[in-house]
Amino acid sequence: MKKGLLIAVSGFSGAGKGTLMKKLMDECPDDFALSISATTRQPREGEKEGVEYFFKTKEEFEEMIDAGELIEHAVYVGNYYGTPKKFVDEQRESGKDVLLEIEVQGVLQVKEKFPDTVTVFVTPPTISELRKRLTGRGTEDAETIEKRIERAAEEVRYAYDYDYLLINDDIDKAIADLRDIVSAEHQKEENRTDVVKRLQDELGGKK
Amino acid sequence: MKKGLLIAVSGFSGAGKGTLMKKLMDECPDDFALSISATTRQPREGEKEGVEYFFKTKEEFEEMIDAGELIEHAVYVGNYYGTPKKFVDEQRESGKDVLLEIEVQGVLQVKEKFPDTVTVFVTPPTISELRKRLTGRGTEDAETIEKRIERAAEEVRYAYDYDYLLINDDIDKAIADLRDIVSAEHQKEENRTDVVKRLQDELGGKK
Repeated sequence: MKKGLLIAVSGFSGAGKGTLMKKLMDECPDDFALSISATTRQPREGEKEGVEYFFKTKEEFEEMIDAGELIEHAVYVGNYYGTPKKFVDEQRESGKDVLLEIEVQGVLQVKEKFPDTVTVFVTPPTISELRKRLTGRGTEDAETIEKRIERAAEEVRYAYDYDYLLINDDIDKAIADLRDIVSAEHQKEENRTDVVKRLQDELGGKK
Repeated sequence: MKKGLLIAVSGFSGAGKGTLMKKLMDECPDDFALSISATTRQPREGEKEGVEYFFKTKEEFEEMIDAGELIEHAVYVGNYYGTPKKFVDEQRESGKDVLLEIEVQGVLQVKEKFPDTVTVFVTPPTISELRKRLTGRGTEDAETIEKRIERAAEEVRYAYDYDYLLINDDIDKAIADLRDIVSAEHQKEENRTDVVKRLQDELGGKK
């Protein structure tokens, strides 16, 4: 079984990362696995262990950090959040490509542990479109929206360091584009050296 | 207009490069241009200037070499063959992705002139399949086929230096795979820095 890819997806709040991942998982449940984070925050109603999150106590989480069991971790509003290495490894070993939705700061940590991570930055075509989407949600007040735009202004500087820039204008086109990226990555020579070696062996008699 | 990519395609004789390029051109004539070589060999019946080849005298060809007008060139059976830079540049400037079918040795020259060249090595899934295809053509005798296999044994060593390894098992799948590669390359961050800059400008007020 060929090892799957690790695909880290970041992007502005309102870029549509969540929908993108969910739709991709619905379309190809056998090809992809969505990484599940560990957190010390309390489960909300309906959240299940190992589905939305792996729920941990502060002590358990800090033990995971010390044991090197997390690919990356951060503190957000007083709680730990992190990516367990074990789940990612297991899924990749089973041949699935693992999707990791992650903040820009976390990507550096991930790249350090797994230099072969494929990194994708998702953006709406324009910032006015981003603003429209954030307003359209109807769940955030003007001040919160401004905060998200300010955050986007910070995050955009990291976009240059990503492998790919995925422009999410139409969701179905964006999914197709993401699948093109994944297809191309599987065809990269460095992910197919086994094939070249096999051809070379077959040609071995001739040199 | 965004500049097109330069895509250099190599591979074993019998790998199906020609059919692949032809079908891709038929499917998407507006997206791609096939690079036309210059040569000093005589036109065969039915061959037209600027369609199959740009036909040149030895003197004209050597002037092109001296003037740096060729991306790469080589001598084959006593005739010069080369890739005129002008045609490639014009097509790329017009936004088309230029396909260049080229021997493994020529790719080094191309990469030197255009470091952003996307390189694709095409292979049948196995060497026994390659042998079957070469035999199936019915146009070559056993000795010629053995020579091609021997040549494949030389060429396979270069495969490691290509960006992508395209496995041509089913032709329609291979075309789809090649289009995935092209789509992904267009989405590479380095080919979309203009978009990131524009987003940054839009966010300019905010920092």
